Amino acid sequence: MSQGRFITLEGGEGAGKSTQLRALAAALRDAGLEVVETREPGGSEGAEAIRALLLTGGADRWSARAEALLFAAARADHVEKTIRPALERGAWVLSDRFLDSSRAYQGQGALSDADILALHRIGSDGFLPDRTVLLMLPEEEAAGRAKARDGEVSDRIGGRASDFHRAVADAFARFATQEPERFRSIDAAGPAEAVTARLMAALADLLP
Amino acid sequence: MSQGRFITLEGGEGAGKSTQLRALAAALRDAGLEVVETREPGGSEGAEAIRALLLTGGADRWSARAEALLFAAARADHVEKTIRPALERGAWVLSDRFLDSSRAYQGQGALSDADILALHRIGSDGFLPDRTVLLMLPEEEAAGRAKARDGEVSDRIGGRASDFHRAVADAFARFATQEPERFRSIDAAGPAEAVTARLMAALADLLP
Ligand SMILES: Nc1ncnc2c1ncn2[C@@H]1O[C@H](COP(=O)(O)OP(=O)(O)OP(=O)(O)O)[C@@H](O)[C@H]1O
Ligand SMILES: Nc1ncnc2c1ncn2[C@@H]1O[C@H](COP(=O)(O)OP(=O)(O)OP(=O)(O)O)[C@@H](O)[C@H]1O
Ligand SMILES: [Mg+2]
Ligand SMILES: [Mg+2]
Repeated sequence: MSQGRFITLEGGEGAGKSTQLRALAAALRDAGLEVVETREPGGSEGAEAIRALLLTGGADRWSARAEALLFAAARADHVEKTIRPALERGAWVLSDRFLDSSRAYQGQGALSDADILALHRIGSDGFLPDRTVLLMLPEEEAAGRAKARDGEVSDRIGGRASDFHRAVADAFARFATQEPERFRSIDAAGPAEAVTARLMAALADLLP
Repeated sequence: MSQGRFITLEGGEGAGKSTQLRALAAALRDAGLEVVETREPGGSEGAEAIRALLLTGGADRWSARAEALLFAAARADHVEKTIRPALERGAWVLSDRFLDSSRAYQGQGALSDADILALHRIGSDGFLPDRTVLLMLPEEEAAGRAKARDGEVSDRIGGRASDFHRAVADAFARFATQEPERFRSIDAAGPAEAVTARLMAALADLLP
């Protein structure tokens, strides 16, 4: 049995995380690995129930503080019920967003990055991915892709101004610089197959 | 307009918190004060939705860590949407349980008291009651009252072993010792009217 690995894909809306996660899962399965595909918020029964609370209601339903606590609660459940058990039996776990999305999105306002990390320490013992791949795409291109997909951006987290999305992109880039071992940043522009090739290269050192 | 005050009632199940909260609210209204009666978990729209997640499902639906985060999220919403606005307009706010119940219940297992307090700092800026009254009742008497009321103890937080309830009572007593200004411990045995009189005495210095 090969060692399980925990991989997260991060990046702004429309960067191609969900598309690349499916392609990566297929490639790893072709290589004979057991793969669990998951996402945040959600990924376990309890976390999906919390997700429903987070993504419904008006933009001001939850304060930034309450939102950060709900994300951390969902993540604690996701780690305990889905991610850790899969890793323990040797599976690869691929998550569409994880902690760094909380840091990038909820860390913009009332809460510091240290606060978000404290919530993750309390909720999940500070559990981190083996590798986090940041999909980098110019804002206009990402917005174009998301719009082609959704018609209009819809949920209460997606529907925010351009300044906000730029701050999120800057925050992701900062995290990648702070943890060069865990992070790899890849260019997410161009055909999906080319992006998948870059993604596989960013994981090459972890593959059996 | 007199100054608003935030009063919390704490104690184990069946100690008489809900009964005394109603009696206290009536007495304060008779004294001409605006009174808001609330409870935890819950007390605001968002917090009640979180309450529903917390109190349903099996005893192992949520880990202690996820549970503590959910309580802190509910409390952040409760403080922001219900408690602070009421205090700002000069009302007295009476809450049936608050932070100290999280410390006493969720602080038994994987989490330290410092962790629970950190969650409250992040969620609610560490906002504390002006006075917390601890209703002290011998375990057998409390269990007898709760059983007379419910038939059997029912929800997933109430249905736990006697050791657990003793640890909770010890934790409450410890908090009261640590913060003698904020806490008053009163004897909750005997007729309800006698307990209410002790409760009013424990608030006398705050009354206009
Ligand atoms: N390389 C690509 N070239 C063109 N379009 C793409 C590419 N990759 C994905 N898309 C399309 O762009 C849209 C957004 O992609 P995807 O849903 O994978 O992004 P995402 O990062 O998961 O977005 P969100 O954060 O909103 O979930 C989809 O319609 C998808 O089909
Ligand atoms: N002084 C009293 N003497 C006898 N019975 C009482 C007294 N006060 C309350 N009771 C009864 O005891 C039961 C428990 O009281 P109450 O519901 O107020 O406790 P509680 O602390 O709110 O409990 P819980 O934590 O389970 O909500 C109720 O049936 C109530 O009517
Ligand atoms: Mg997606
Ligand atoms: Mg009660």
